[in-house]
Amino acid sequence: MRYEEFTIEGRNAVIEAFRSGKTIDKVYIQDGCQDGPIATVKREAKKQDTLVRFVPKERLDQMSGTGRHQGVIAYAAAYGYAEVEDMLKLAEEKGEPPFLMLLDNIEDPHNLGAIIRTANLAGAHGVIIPKNHAAGLTAAVARASAGALNYTMVAKVTNLAKTIDALKKKGIWFVCADMDGTQMYQLDLKGPIGLVIGGEGEGIGRLIKEKCDFVASIPMKGDIDSLNASVAAGVLAYEIVRQQMGR
Amino acid sequence: MRYEEFTIEGRNAVIEAFRSGKTIDKVYIQDGCQDGPIATVKREAKKQDTLVRFVPKERLDQMSGTGRHQGVIAYAAAYGYAEVEDMLKLAEEKGEPPFLMLLDNIEDPHNLGAIIRTANLAGAHGVIIPKNHAAGLTAAVARASAGALNYTMVAKVTNLAKTIDALKKKGIWFVCADMDGTQMYQLDLKGPIGLVIGGEGEGIGRLIKEKCDFVASIPMKGDIDSLNASVAAGVLAYEIVRQQMGR
Repeated sequence: MRYEEFTIEGRNAVIEAFRSGKTIDKVYIQDGCQDGPIATVKREAKKQDTLVRFVPKERLDQMSGTGRHQGVIAYAAAYGYAEVEDMLKLAEEKGEPPFLMLLDNIEDPHNLGAIIRTANLAGAHGVIIPKNHAAGLTAAVARASAGALNYTMVAKVTNLAKTIDALKKKGIWFVCADMDGTQMYQLDLKGPIGLVIGGEGEGIGRLIKEKCDFVASIPMKGDIDSLNASVAAGVLAYEIVRQQMGR
Repeated sequence: MRYEEFTIEGRNAVIEAFRSGKTIDKVYIQDGCQDGPIATVKREAKKQDTLVRFVPKERLDQMSGTGRHQGVIAYAAAYGYAEVEDMLKLAEEKGEPPFLMLLDNIEDPHNLGAIIRTANLAGAHGVIIPKNHAAGLTAAVARASAGALNYTMVAKVTNLAKTIDALKKKGIWFVCADMDGTQMYQLDLKGPIGLVIGGEGEGIGRLIKEKCDFVASIPMKGDIDSLNASVAAGVLAYEIVRQQMGR
């Protein structure tokens, strides 16, 4: 099966997974567990910058599929991550201005998958997600991406704000969406661009918003607050496509 | 709770639900059941144009939450449906050209909900779904619509093609999306319009496509076949918004 679920349970299995180089998104460790193998798990997690959460035994019992978690359950990415550098290289190779999509607070795997799918078709060179907030590249994300995850690079970064700063120095402009922004048709979205999408509910973080060069608003004629995050991403990505095509 | 699940199990409960005027989407009846109450369920279902499916007992057992289905389980809409006529009336009241969204083969409740949400914000006057193929207005759809279902009318029609024919006579133009269409920026999408969205996988039905005045294509730069259905709906709906705003 193409989309395997990588839930890994038990001390040795988790340690093995780390050592074999699998991308582990999160490790759940039972509160109070401090023996040798658990210390090894923590050390490996630190080495790979994997998130570690300490949870009560009851939580692990609920999460466990096998009933034999031995105090530790890891969630591994079904797909590997790329580096932001690779995305810039791809843009250069294609002779296109870089077009990146950055996701702030996107937790829903359906949305993440749909956005990766949109990124692929809108011609973006990659999708950047923050390490601590986003859904990982799980099987659900892969399925929702309808195969796009096989083609479109996804990078996971420790600090989205710092990544934006670094990319700005390379001449990339950033636009995010918010209700109080300038109508998207009035912005110049051609050239090297990073489109920042906020999550459902919370929307875009204040710090990230402040980093953006433009705040774009999608015309809203209705009664509710906001579009679904993946729909908003699609509408904005295609506004960029339209402008870049000179339409 | 605002979003109640209306699964109704058992003969009397289902008959009661019909008689109280609830919108029942589907009724599952156990193969071979032919007694009086089941005959009443069938009669009520026919009266209300509810879909009836005959399934083996094992299937009903699986579907049952209570374990006491007595050979019949009904799925009721969490929300009531509107009539297409009401949508045209709304457009007239607002002094706007009618803008309708029609969904062909949209089965996924997340997509249906997200599309209703988009319809609300893009200023569409309603969403039309076919009786026999679409997901009903279940709790999952209501949740995915983020409240839009409270504002945006949804009508369920027996035959989407006939509805399109009837609306064409009232001066509405229809556009659907397909890969082999004309680039959406080159089409004139102003004025009274019905946007037809095909489902995941199968896409738009041949007959429905033939009924459409225009076939629009969204620029596709990537490696995969198609956008998520709700994203495609959003991109097209906002192309209509852009053109109608004269941008």
